[in-house]
Amino acid sequence: MIDLDTAKVMVTEARKKGRDLGLQPLAVVVIDDGGHIKAFEREDGASPGRFDIALGKAYGAVMLGMPGSAQMARAEAQAYFMTAANGVFGGKLVPVPGGVLVKRDGVIIGAVGVSGDVSDKDAEAAVAGITAAGLDPVA
Amino acid sequence: MIDLDTAKVMVTEARKKGRDLGLQPLAVVVIDDGGHIKAFEREDGASPGRFDIALGKAYGAVMLGMPGSAQMARAEAQAYFMTAANGVFGGKLVPVPGGVLVKRDGVIIGAVGVSGDVSDKDAEAAVAGITAAGLDPVA
Amino acid sequence: MIDLDTAKVMVTEARKKGRDLGLQPLAVVVIDDGGHIKAFEREDGASPGRFDIALGKAYGAVMLGMPGSAQMARAEAQAYFMTAANGVFGGKLVPVPGGVLVKRDGVIIGAVGVSGDVSDKDAEAAVAGITAAGLDPVA
Amino acid sequence: MIDLDTAKVMVTEARKKGRDLGLQPLAVVVIDDGGHIKAFEREDGASPGRFDIALGKAYGAVMLGMPGSAQMARAEAQAYFMTAANGVFGGKLVPVPGGVLVKRDGVIIGAVGVSGDVSDKDAEAAVAGITAAGLDPVA
Repeated sequence: MIDLDTAKVMVTEARKKGRDLGLQPLAVVVIDDGGHIKAFEREDGASPGRFDIALGKAYGAVMLGMPGSAQMARAEAQAYFMTAANGVFGGKLVPVPGGVLVKRDGVIIGAVGVSGDVSDKDAEAAVAGITAAGLDPVA
Repeated sequence: MIDLDTAKVMVTEARKKGRDLGLQPLAVVVIDDGGHIKAFEREDGASPGRFDIALGKAYGAVMLGMPGSAQMARAEAQAYFMTAANGVFGGKLVPVPGGVLVKRDGVIIGAVGVSGDVSDKDAEAAVAGITAAGLDPVA
Repeated sequence: MIDLDTAKVMVTEARKKGRDLGLQPLAVVVIDDGGHIKAFEREDGASPGRFDIALGKAYGAVMLGMPGSAQMARAEAQAYFMTAANGVFGGKLVPVPGGVLVKRDGVIIGAVGVSGDVSDKDAEAAVAGITAAGLDPVA
Repeated sequence: MIDLDTAKVMVTEARKKGRDLGLQPLAVVVIDDGGHIKAFEREDGASPGRFDIALGKAYGAVMLGMPGSAQMARAEAQAYFMTAANGVFGGKLVPVPGGVLVKRDGVIIGAVGVSGDVSDKDAEAAVAGITAAGLDPVA
């Protein structure tokens, strides 16, 4: 379980990392282990669709139990699998870095999704947020 | 335009009103004048679907330019209109109180959607958040 | 969290209640607090669509935090609200008895959905399953 | 026709095979010859989306009369065909191993879908379940 206070720490610290690295404006979402949103913030200047992209990254991570990097590897090796997976999940998966699993004591308790800059930088911000909350990221 | 700092004030203050009134756990969303999410928080204990309900209240307010109370009145007077409206908006409208327009200088700049308690209490929390941010609610 | 062993007890005991009461063949689903299926069984003779109905009862209970009886009351008092709610949840809610919340220590940890007989009998079977597992039903 | 008792044997024995082989936690579904679910279990630790993937594997097998391996071969040879097939089936097909046809006396009576480990191991578990029930797998 991710409580709201912890979710907000992750959002705040992921955004702070983005500012420290001089990234483009970010959208940052935290979802629980059922794929449901706990907290979200979209920075000024981030395009409106960044919500959907950030959520898609986090949602795929939770639903498949795979972070964005692993989903991207699968998509590159076997594109039709990720296309089919998107079919069964209503088109809600975005299989690129920036969807980072959140673990506590080895158990997945949710995910952070970040969108706004290039995917690897998005992931770096997500990892920073999770670490700052004392939890374990799998990017 | 609603900047993120202002959106966060509205979320924080709407939630504070909920706590002051002893309401059920709330989900609070702020969307801009394009119907796109700026900030969202779901309090611990609020059921996962409260995100979708809160967003549906706010989204309908912005897309139709009518707060939840006016949408409810229309639904009660002319149910097929709201059904048809939901058709063209992909089923994303929830026409009950708790979707409150945000105005500045008489212009709609977004909406706050709240779900968790009974609709009228949800609306009361939304109004408190908007007022605390120095903006004008239309509930 | 509902573990699989507990979910299976609920399915088995709900079905047993159905046999004891001489109910029509039942479909019984157990979902977790994110609305995701843990276990499902459809008895021989139950029509194929009973899966979707049982799931819709359980899913609505978890997403809205309201058992089927409360959803039915809301649908009867304010039909357009449940219609709108079904819009935001992709048509996946079935607001009648037989969707029963599962609580432990006062916290919702999932739901049982039963379909096959009349709604009140479906709910009775679900309650029996939950009680047999040492958990608290809210029907 | 697959009766529920037989379906449960297949689920139980597929899961047992998974434990014997030390596989990741599995989701196992059994569907009938109409593509409708008879029984499902998701082991503790399997991500929530494993239901959808397992079902997509089994569903495609029944609807096309082709096991996952044959669907994968077709997807690799002619990707646009599987994409088009997914169009007509509402995106519900997942064309990879782990969707195994169940035959009796040479007639398809349903399918088992397994998801959780790599596709070939998923298929191995499904085959074990079907064989243990005295039926004939086509993987």
